[in-house]
Amino acid sequence: MQATNMAADTHRETDTSHRVSSLNHNDKPYHIVLAQQFDRSSIDQLCQMADMIRTIANSRQGGQFLRTMLGHKRAMLYFIQPSTRTFLSFTAACQVIGMPFSEVRDRSTSSEVKGESEDDTIRTLSQYFDLIIMRHPMEGFAEHVATMLNDMPRTIPVMNAGSGKDQHPTQALLDIYTLYRSFANPRAERSEPRYTKNVFAGKTIAFAGDLLRGRTVRSLAYLLCRYPGVRLVFVSPPELKIGDDILDYLGKHDIEYELRDDLRKDLGEYDAVYMTRLQDEHDKSGESKAIDYDKYVLTADMVPDFKSNLTIMHPLPRRHELDEKLDATPYAKYWQQVRNGMWMRAALIATVFNVDVAIRDHYHAYYTF
Amino acid sequence: MQATNMAADTHRETDTSHRVSSLNHNDKPYHIVLAQQFDRSSIDQLCQMADMIRTIANSRQGGQFLRTMLGHKRAMLYFIQPSTRTFLSFTAACQVIGMPFSEVRDRSTSSEVKGESEDDTIRTLSQYFDLIIMRHPMEGFAEHVATMLNDMPRTIPVMNAGSGKDQHPTQALLDIYTLYRSFANPRAERSEPRYTKNVFAGKTIAFAGDLLRGRTVRSLAYLLCRYPGVRLVFVSPPELKIGDDILDYLGKHDIEYELRDDLRKDLGEYDAVYMTRLQDEHDKSGESKAIDYDKYVLTADMVPDFKSNLTIMHPLPRRHELDEKLDATPYAKYWQQVRNGMWMRAALIATVFNVDVAIRDHYHAYYTF
Amino acid sequence: MQATNMAADTHRETDTSHRVSSLNHNDKPYHIVLAQQFDRSSIDQLCQMADMIRTIANSRQGGQFLRTMLGHKRAMLYFIQPSTRTFLSFTAACQVIGMPFSEVRDRSTSSEVKGESEDDTIRTLSQYFDLIIMRHPMEGFAEHVATMLNDMPRTIPVMNAGSGKDQHPTQALLDIYTLYRSFANPRAERSEPRYTKNVFAGKTIAFAGDLLRGRTVRSLAYLLCRYPGVRLVFVSPPELKIGDDILDYLGKHDIEYELRDDLRKDLGEYDAVYMTRLQDEHDKSGESKAIDYDKYVLTADMVPDFKSNLTIMHPLPRRHELDEKLDATPYAKYWQQVRNGMWMRAALIATVFNVDVAIRDHYHAYYTF
Repeated sequence: MQATNMAADTHRETDTSHRVSSLNHNDKPYHIVLAQQFDRSSIDQLCQMADMIRTIANSRQGGQFLRTMLGHKRAMLYFIQPSTRTFLSFTAACQVIGMPFSEVRDRSTSSEVKGESEDDTIRTLSQYFDLIIMRHPMEGFAEHVATMLNDMPRTIPVMNAGSGKDQHPTQALLDIYTLYRSFANPRAERSEPRYTKNVFAGKTIAFAGDLLRGRTVRSLAYLLCRYPGVRLVFVSPPELKIGDDILDYLGKHDIEYELRDDLRKDLGEYDAVYMTRLQDEHDKSGESKAIDYDKYVLTADMVPDFKSNLTIMHPLPRRHELDEKLDATPYAKYWQQVRNGMWMRAALIATVFNVDVAIRDHYHAYYTF
Repeated sequence: MQATNMAADTHRETDTSHRVSSLNHNDKPYHIVLAQQFDRSSIDQLCQMADMIRTIANSRQGGQFLRTMLGHKRAMLYFIQPSTRTFLSFTAACQVIGMPFSEVRDRSTSSEVKGESEDDTIRTLSQYFDLIIMRHPMEGFAEHVATMLNDMPRTIPVMNAGSGKDQHPTQALLDIYTLYRSFANPRAERSEPRYTKNVFAGKTIAFAGDLLRGRTVRSLAYLLCRYPGVRLVFVSPPELKIGDDILDYLGKHDIEYELRDDLRKDLGEYDAVYMTRLQDEHDKSGESKAIDYDKYVLTADMVPDFKSNLTIMHPLPRRHELDEKLDATPYAKYWQQVRNGMWMRAALIATVFNVDVAIRDHYHAYYTF
Repeated sequence: MQATNMAADTHRETDTSHRVSSLNHNDKPYHIVLAQQFDRSSIDQLCQMADMIRTIANSRQGGQFLRTMLGHKRAMLYFIQPSTRTFLSFTAACQVIGMPFSEVRDRSTSSEVKGESEDDTIRTLSQYFDLIIMRHPMEGFAEHVATMLNDMPRTIPVMNAGSGKDQHPTQALLDIYTLYRSFANPRAERSEPRYTKNVFAGKTIAFAGDLLRGRTVRSLAYLLCRYPGVRLVFVSPPELKIGDDILDYLGKHDIEYELRDDLRKDLGEYDAVYMTRLQDEHDKSGESKAIDYDKYVLTADMVPDFKSNLTIMHPLPRRHELDEKLDATPYAKYWQQVRNGMWMRAALIATVFNVDVAIRDHYHAYYTF
């Protein structure tokens, strides 16, 4: 994958393409900042790389091979916003690929108390580490950092692990990877190049719940635009409907979509349902209490209405909107989704440092017949 | 060591054996949850494995060999209850055996604030990691987790690093390993198979101090029942005497024991004294203040009363009950005891993942003459 | 480098030499405690080792070679005093040299709450780890620990990463390494043995700002005494001038120095300016507010007054005393200084464990022509 792929959006999205192309040049590190930066071929290749890493890691010899890939580099996990799940997913990904890492979780124990600007903190980190994986409460902060690092004599890549309510591109990639694996014919896995086929064409994917504040849905919607023929249904209370900017983006990319307000209705239409919880921690005045969330809940008694090969996803953590009784059913893909995150993040790191080539070679030498 | 060993207690302890056998089946991961699950042969083999790892780790080449054992696996140290000592012992054990690890020390920075159940947290962790090492304030929590993980499509082993006031099986194993090394003839180490002999027969071991609230003593007592002929003396204030359930267990296993209330009296009888501190942090109403703890203290002026090869142990941290002046005497084995914990935990992890076989082969190839 | 080098000060500094020689004997581990313990040859060799490690780490093969050096050892980063920068520098150094590490950042989550003395905490750590890297608020604590560990049956080295307002020897070493690299002719790097030449002779180095409370300046002054012919200028407000003990030390070593109170005046004299911030976090009564710090500030408009090859350093974090506009100029060496810390600390750890020899051999075999 070339950094030039990052400008994929150029002719359609004036606004975003500007953001993307200003970050990534051929002579600069490969920053992972926005979901929009990935074109179809990049996504396909990342899914393929994730599958290869998963397969190789399955044996002890393979696992040891992978751990030789990035032992000479170091990652900084700069996670200022509380996050256990994404943090641990990245640590596990680093461990899979053999990349040592350190962490900063809290600026208050750091140089901030001595009056240091956050820019200087990042500049300092860029001297010790070869990659900054960043989770931050401020929207657009990862972009700002990528630009700032491009100006340093020693430039290193930044990877956005979630910034503000805006973007969470690695979550979007693991989500699309999970859909990919569900929609593709698993028996065909090794005999045909499944990642060059558009397995999304003709599929209907529902997003249910708090679509206003869930950044995972936003980022995933950007990626799904790369797959013509997919149909998206946004099922939410009117107060929590998906942002108009996303609907505009879908429209510009000729993606069919619909807005609904009851999950149970027409449930049998959906090939996948992407559940989300009510994000009332963002809720200062308690206005969410008035919302009737019961129409955005999936329970075991709804199984008869499911399409036979329905895929249920959830970015987790869940609350009552997703019934624990569904965990044991074949529809539940949310635990695999968690694990897919680790493989996809390992694939991304490998790609940023161009060791995807060595992994691909190793895979073809030992794991194909 | 086979998982079938775990059911050792079956014919004697209806209650415990039920707990043990419900956890460990041949087709499930090898969970380390209760001290009672270890039979004599398991303990002997773990002590032997700990000795082998210690010997191999002593050279740079050996250390590098050990670090190739589990580089392809990942451990999660889920330590919700504050613990530095046990936590670091496990990190060092993982490092010895080359197993990458991550940690969760505090649920408040995690998904709990977003309303996630602790079960879902654990299920999520089980997707990233291959072993959960768990310290938890709730009694029986490790058992609950083992059962829950057995129901997941991807099952992984859990290791109990202390739960509530109840069980601390890895501490018990390091304690018995320390006694083993003290009682066995060190010069015979390589020429005879010392771990098949019952070196405890005829030995008197005193436990002194707060025996009511110290879980280390409880767990060690379970293990000592595997060695007929050992004699246990419990020396404590009447308010802090050992639980009746332990005494019942000893009785059922025909282990001779005695309860006393003054450590200095009959001190010359003891081959080992296991000291404990007053655990008054569990003490809400300050009732411990009335207890005269001075009769449960070991000081340098008592050395003349010691048996010539007395072994002094302490799970640490200590307070005034164990005189610092004893540190430099040959009786003091509590620092070695700390280090033994690292070797024993490395042996346990190796055994859980069946790499004990490769370590044994390496040992016999390079370290026996 | 031999531990005997540590007594370098013997004939001049009765007081310090006593501290140094009581710590380091030939049969004891090599503790890194005081800046004064390094003689000229030790410093030269450490700078050389840092350069070799930097060069070797530059390639993937080299990086993997370095990571085999200390995989069989374990470091404890005992950082009780808040510090992100130094902490991360040491973690990165451990990662460069392949040394696994664990950390203790806060005694309150540890055994202290159970009434353990800090000495016992350290003794316990010494059982799991092979090196303690220590940052502590108490002056002289690292020395105390080195002495205490020398009395344990298992002795391990301690490395002082900053104790109280007193000493920060590894910062001093990275500072002198940065000066070395700036003053030496880079084109001559490989053809002549630059680290045997006194590149400091005839150079004027200014220290500016809060020289009373900045321990980095104190430690660096000790090291510069090893280089006859260097001239030091201390530029500070009268209330924050450098301690008399340092001036005494310089006097005894025949190092020329001067005290001034305006940085802009005579700026053109300086080959290097070492900037420091106002350390008003030590400031309880707010007395620093009255100080006019504007005379100890370096701004972009002062560039015309700079010597053509001026080196600007700063231990960071900075505040307004060092203009961000200078970052892009060739004078700015403070980001390299940060990175130099990682290489110097890796060199120190390698030296403590005597793997510097293997690194030197590898360097001469593969990286010299």
